[in-house]
Amino acid sequence: MKRLSSKKVIYVFSPKNMPAYTVENDERVLVETRDCFGGKARTSKDLFEDIAMGNVNPATGPIEVEGLSAGETLCVSIEKIKCGKIGVMMCSPNLGILSEDVRRSRTKIIPIKGGKALFSRDIEVELNPHIGVIGVSPLKEEVPVFYPGDFGGNLDTIEAREGSKVYLPTYHDGAMVAIGDVHAAMGDGEVCGTGIEVAAEVTIKLSKNDDVELKRPMIETPTEWIAYAAAKTLDYAAKLATSDLVRFISNRLGVDFEEAYMLASVAANLKVSQVVDPLMAARMSISKKYL
Amino acid sequence: MKRLSSKKVIYVFSPKNMPAYTVENDERVLVETRDCFGGKARTSKDLFEDIAMGNVNPATGPIEVEGLSAGETLCVSIEKIKCGKIGVMMCSPNLGILSEDVRRSRTKIIPIKGGKALFSRDIEVELNPHIGVIGVSPLKEEVPVFYPGDFGGNLDTIEAREGSKVYLPTYHDGAMVAIGDVHAAMGDGEVCGTGIEVAAEVTIKLSKNDDVELKRPMIETPTEWIAYAAAKTLDYAAKLATSDLVRFISNRLGVDFEEAYMLASVAANLKVSQVVDPLMAARMSISKKYL
Repeated sequence: MKRLSSKKVIYVFSPKNMPAYTVENDERVLVETRDCFGGKARTSKDLFEDIAMGNVNPATGPIEVEGLSAGETLCVSIEKIKCGKIGVMMCSPNLGILSEDVRRSRTKIIPIKGGKALFSRDIEVELNPHIGVIGVSPLKEEVPVFYPGDFGGNLDTIEAREGSKVYLPTYHDGAMVAIGDVHAAMGDGEVCGTGIEVAAEVTIKLSKNDDVELKRPMIETPTEWIAYAAAKTLDYAAKLATSDLVRFISNRLGVDFEEAYMLASVAANLKVSQVVDPLMAARMSISKKYL
Repeated sequence: MKRLSSKKVIYVFSPKNMPAYTVENDERVLVETRDCFGGKARTSKDLFEDIAMGNVNPATGPIEVEGLSAGETLCVSIEKIKCGKIGVMMCSPNLGILSEDVRRSRTKIIPIKGGKALFSRDIEVELNPHIGVIGVSPLKEEVPVFYPGDFGGNLDTIEAREGSKVYLPTYHDGAMVAIGDVHAAMGDGEVCGTGIEVAAEVTIKLSKNDDVELKRPMIETPTEWIAYAAAKTLDYAAKLATSDLVRFISNRLGVDFEEAYMLASVAANLKVSQVVDPLMAARMSISKKYL
């Protein structure tokens, strides 16, 4: 299995990006990822303003997937996420949904041990490791890696975890995937602006896919289908995610829009991915048992 | 146990409301509730535009709680929800987050049998019975019962279910609680504008509470604490719910704002209650094991 080093990273998803790595269709690779601060936060004295402003989320890649043509769907199967042993969190008056209430920046160095994060002397946080950033080169725009969008990017969605498949639309031959920003733990919303940020080793398989047509990211877990959308407001992201999932249900079940819409209203769940990136992100999930 | 008939309902939460019923502090009562359409939708030909526009969610009450003074917290313990055997759903071009995509109004009559809702010939939906409307008389405004607000009202939140406690601020002696709009099932978001709407019999205990201070509704389940907020946008509702929960965590744990904020970011979940009422509602939950 190839190991793709985190020495080669991007900070912008761009149509001009050239491949740092090339893999075959369906190839399994191990991708090293730096933490969202690029490993620069080593002690509680390394504050957001000193090291992170405007230069976060280095994403390993771009990875060219051979045989995948622009316009085809990319499937990223996440087989394993091995988190580093030290996590970092930051809060800052420049970060998060309650930024104006933060009096002083703070950095927390959080040991990860025995499947828990040692948040403080008294509090252990359950881990839910997932990949924050998975994206491809967008059609025309140049998008910093801390933005989410139709091309993926800073998804910050907890189901991008071991056992899940992330489906993305592609706009260029080879897709030019980049991956980074693994969280050892994050709650829906990521309200302070960070999860427990870690370097990681991620084993993924990159495949072109003929079954799932999409305009925006979708995630398949062993038990659910999830439509994801990012927009300037959470309200609009919620609307897009709902629209995508309702149409997905309609296609899968062969029922009309109204029937799928009513089923979604009682059997699907509209959720918050994050409210702290430059665009807000929502998703809607439905159990596979209904499909 | 007293049975409070659904013959006495309100359509407006108002400071002028006079008690229809009076109960003692800590009294357990059975409250009959009509479905959100007041029982007027009997067949699939009864469409939203014909029967429901502007006149939904009759709420049984007001119930005066003796000994509860304005400004104290009301605790509504939900002990049992017994749903009727027939549910109703509607979709309409006048309803829901994707209203403009609905070509024609549709009403579905949905039998409820053996713990499932028979959504269609092929699809059975899992039940998650909960109370849609629980509110008290607001301070000054007169608020139609399909609005949510700081006083409660149309919460449309799935954790208002058996075993939960709903805490509300009060503004008038006796609180003047009203309850209605039970759903046999609803997904987070309630995207088409209705859940599976049923008449019900709800057993609740109404108590004044000295432990929980709040500006907006909170819900306690056996395993979680949840802060709820409604606002014109989902973005702002999310901010209010986050702010309330972070301050709750800070108080309970005796830690400062920044510590509580970072803990919420990794251990609490920001969720969507609904995106289809005149105000949008979000909530944020944290497991009791952290508190």
